[in-house]
Amino acid sequence: MPDALTTSSSEPSHDPCVIGVDYGTLSGRAVVVRVRDGAELGSAVHEYAHAVVTGVLPRDTAGDDGARLPGEWALQVPNDYRDVLRTAVPAAVADAGIDPAAVVGIATDFTACTMVPVTADGTPLNELAAFANRPHAYVKLWRHHAAQGQADRINRLAAERGEDWLPRYGGLISSEWEFAKGLQLLEEDPEAYAAMDHWVEAADWIVWQLCGRYVRNACTAGYKGIYQDGRYPSEEFLAALNPDFKDFVSSKLEHTIGRLGDAAGTLTAEAAAWTGLPEGIAVAVGNVDAHVTAPAAKAVEPGQLVAIMGTSTCHVMNGSELREVPGMCGAVDGGIVPGLWGYEAGQSGVGDIFGWFTRHGVPPEYHQAAKDAGLGIHEYLTELASRQAIGEHGLIALDWHSGNRSVLVDHELSGMVVGQTLATRPEDTYRALLEATAFGTRTIVDAFRDAGVPVKEFIVAGGLLKNRLLMQIYADATGLPLSTIGSEQGPALGSAIHAAVAAGAYADIREAAAAMGAEPGEVYTPIPENAAAYDELFQEYRTLHDYFGRGSNDVMHRLKAIQRKAAQAARPGAGVAAKATVGVSA
Amino acid sequence: MPDALTTSSSEPSHDPCVIGVDYGTLSGRAVVVRVRDGAELGSAVHEYAHAVVTGVLPRDTAGDDGARLPGEWALQVPNDYRDVLRTAVPAAVADAGIDPAAVVGIATDFTACTMVPVTADGTPLNELAAFANRPHAYVKLWRHHAAQGQADRINRLAAERGEDWLPRYGGLISSEWEFAKGLQLLEEDPEAYAAMDHWVEAADWIVWQLCGRYVRNACTAGYKGIYQDGRYPSEEFLAALNPDFKDFVSSKLEHTIGRLGDAAGTLTAEAAAWTGLPEGIAVAVGNVDAHVTAPAAKAVEPGQLVAIMGTSTCHVMNGSELREVPGMCGAVDGGIVPGLWGYEAGQSGVGDIFGWFTRHGVPPEYHQAAKDAGLGIHEYLTELASRQAIGEHGLIALDWHSGNRSVLVDHELSGMVVGQTLATRPEDTYRALLEATAFGTRTIVDAFRDAGVPVKEFIVAGGLLKNRLLMQIYADATGLPLSTIGSEQGPALGSAIHAAVAAGAYADIREAAAAMGAEPGEVYTPIPENAAAYDELFQEYRTLHDYFGRGSNDVMHRLKAIQRKAAQAARPGAGVAAKATVGVSA
Repeated sequence: MPDALTTSSSEPSHDPCVIGVDYGTLSGRAVVVRVRDGAELGSAVHEYAHAVVTGVLPRDTAGDDGARLPGEWALQVPNDYRDVLRTAVPAAVADAGIDPAAVVGIATDFTACTMVPVTADGTPLNELAAFANRPHAYVKLWRHHAAQGQADRINRLAAERGEDWLPRYGGLISSEWEFAKGLQLLEEDPEAYAAMDHWVEAADWIVWQLCGRYVRNACTAGYKGIYQDGRYPSEEFLAALNPDFKDFVSSKLEHTIGRLGDAAGTLTAEAAAWTGLPEGIAVAVGNVDAHVTAPAAKAVEPGQLVAIMGTSTCHVMNGSELREVPGMCGAVDGGIVPGLWGYEAGQSGVGDIFGWFTRHGVPPEYHQAAKDAGLGIHEYLTELASRQAIGEHGLIALDWHSGNRSVLVDHELSGMVVGQTLATRPEDTYRALLEATAFGTRTIVDAFRDAGVPVKEFIVAGGLLKNRLLMQIYADATGLPLSTIGSEQGPALGSAIHAAVAAGAYADIREAAAAMGAEPGEVYTPIPENAAAYDELFQEYRTLHDYFGRGSNDVMHRLKAIQRKAAQAARPGAGVAAKATVGVSA
Repeated sequence: MPDALTTSSSEPSHDPCVIGVDYGTLSGRAVVVRVRDGAELGSAVHEYAHAVVTGVLPRDTAGDDGARLPGEWALQVPNDYRDVLRTAVPAAVADAGIDPAAVVGIATDFTACTMVPVTADGTPLNELAAFANRPHAYVKLWRHHAAQGQADRINRLAAERGEDWLPRYGGLISSEWEFAKGLQLLEEDPEAYAAMDHWVEAADWIVWQLCGRYVRNACTAGYKGIYQDGRYPSEEFLAALNPDFKDFVSSKLEHTIGRLGDAAGTLTAEAAAWTGLPEGIAVAVGNVDAHVTAPAAKAVEPGQLVAIMGTSTCHVMNGSELREVPGMCGAVDGGIVPGLWGYEAGQSGVGDIFGWFTRHGVPPEYHQAAKDAGLGIHEYLTELASRQAIGEHGLIALDWHSGNRSVLVDHELSGMVVGQTLATRPEDTYRALLEATAFGTRTIVDAFRDAGVPVKEFIVAGGLLKNRLLMQIYADATGLPLSTIGSEQGPALGSAIHAAVAAGAYADIREAAAAMGAEPGEVYTPIPENAAAYDELFQEYRTLHDYFGRGSNDVMHRLKAIQRKAAQAARPGAGVAAKATVGVSA
């Protein structure tokens, strides 16, 4: 590492440090990291006051008569993000026991695609009195799924027109992304759309708050903003979707793109006051939680697939060449590190599914037995499930309780389990769900392989790495050597690495990752007989995957349609209220 | 009704009475019924001391080192049946407050096909010291499912040879029936097979105990014994299955057949001593629980489908002509009442599936809330489920957790549920399971209709008739007017009706049913919009039914095979022990 940074002082507390801030779905986490070796010196978490807004807009921002939200809406309140800077950052510095003057840079990562509608100076629309009670003025969280109708139209039109960007996204654009959400905004609240000067990724909005400059990061611009080979989708394409959407790119989206690891600017006086950090330090270009984790895990070489496994899983991997991988979330030049093609895939439900099962499908005796054994319910079920031979439960599940992000890219899919008998016990179903998510990952690994982007190694970050049974199942089901990241702060450490590069402490992200990234935690090797047993079960998964997921039997789609119709018929009042407030997306 | 019976006394307690005894899976129930009007005067229940024997033979009959049983075995101890005569019958008479001298006849009904291997005088093999620790010497309960391999061979060979009896059973013989279980006995314990003089239905064995005569009842001989048009399967057929099985019919099975409602004999002095009833009263030919319920419900006319809904469901219906209905359990001349063709169908899991779900799939809060509301868990879930519009839960389930008896006749099938999301709650799955069993019934109703045996009316007996939501779902899903039996003792009342006929109090079962059968309890009429909504969902059920059940995807079979292999590998000790003791059935 550069001498300049170590020779300035022999006193550890003055060792140059950087701050990484990881913005998750429910909270922001700040970590203080030493530049020379990546040591994590302190951290703090701040939970968003409004968490995820569903059902009705919050009283403290929208007033007593807050507008009601239809199902599948998921909003956030942007000031909650500023609160992380005001509270978690100074708390992390205090926790580290360092002199704030030792901090040379700050970087952030965010959930994506999470979108903020703002005025020219970056003020979120919901902070204007006229828009405070308008759902479309708020942040649309990544898991806002009410723009599926718009996504479907985008996909149909792009396929009809043979748009050359479509294959970069596995042939399908998600309802979660910038264009679908933006089109929904236009069509359901044209006034808010007109009042919006920029349609900004939260990843970039928070950087704007820190340095006073709006820079679009190359990662989300590529993965979520359909920015490919220096271009966005054309005006002809946009006008064909909706004439009023023609200038969406030029009037709302287009802006300076920043390379990952570069500085977007320097810390403003205002942000210095919030954070207690020195004014003028480097502020890195924004980034995404999953993508920053690759350098945190020292896994930025082609073939190293990094999976951030929590409520959902995001997979990122670098490749030296561009290949079209069906059903991927995206392939973006410099999307993870400049100079390589960054591939992204994902599973929309993983830990969420396990959590749903433990909350709604496990009987009292199990909860009591777990308590008696001093275990959490997940640990208890895992313990029981780990005693089984592979296939002994007789079940196959499909892990689509929250839809399918890769490789089918279809949020209207749903979960399935087959093989239950009167002898089936909760640990059987639990294990089948663990395995289903492993088969979901294998489906992605196979898609990479089939497209000529072989996966050689599987690196896991995120909360689920603690489940050793799950990790061995993933190694066995994918047949890949698996290691877990040694840091408990993967994304925040990854952001810190970007901060160090932005501050000039390292030449690039790869060099910084080598010096600052975490060593592996645990290593899991596939067990040949287990891998063979899972090969057999995976064939069954694959057959059911294609039957339910590729149109042989569209029962899942039809059940969702029947469900919506039935729910509306059953609750006419709610349907009308939703319609009156924000229109109906379907 | 005949004068002779009413003029004998004006004192009600001397009004002629009959006893019906219903032998269920876990207990026997005796009821005292007045001959002239079917009034139920008293009843008593006796639970079998050994219940269902699985896992290991009982110490008190087999000794301290009781043989271990492989999975899918289900045995019983025949002396438990005698205990019902010794305890429940006198207790019912006492409960009725009648003079035992007023009892003019007794009849019994039994689970079927439940088989007892006996010596020439009717002694069960397990009561011989030499065989007390041999699993094959015990009663094979109806739900003993370890003879599937034998059933498969019987079905293949019968299809190859074009045996003319095969279509009478919907094209498939069950592993539960006399031939499959008998062949298993021969092949796995030839010594016990050689020592056995008769392979007797428990329905007939208990009558033998009462009257000292062995008479095969026409019902089980036809439905379970492949007795059609006066013949059993040929010696050529049996020899082709196994040369040693050639004389199975002539040496073990063939015996006098008795018509339903006739007397098999009269009560012996020994049985009179057990029961406290007068020696010499009429003992009716044996019968089956489901079949005796039709007269108890006054439903013996063609087109009246009687469903006995409990842990499983048995459907019986009379028809004036013989039709070949695919996937039925059987069509037997005089199988329900002499002079009509008796059709039988069934669903192997119904209440069992709901019970399984409430025991293993419902979280603590629900149990607590049910308790707080003073409701059972079934009632509580039903209450929640009844608030939903049809289709609102977004689910379709297949009700094969215990295999499928009609119309697929395949015990290797298993349960399935599709459509689950993170928003799915226990009441959703519970309702989907209720509906799945209704769709299973509709599949049977449709098969009758398509074969030219139209169902006009649906009459429900059995414990599940208490669930009003379930009854309305059945009416809506089948589109049939539905009524419930007004008696809580359906089978025992039906047996009592047979006793009255055997005693000569009525000319035949139809006349006795008209006088003694119960009036309907509740009546449910299909609601047109519900029926339309269920039509739509039933199409989805039907598609999945055929996909998983008719060979498009044999995943359920393969999962069972994988499961057995895995379980054996995981527990080699148990596998070896089972093999050593009783052989392996698969």
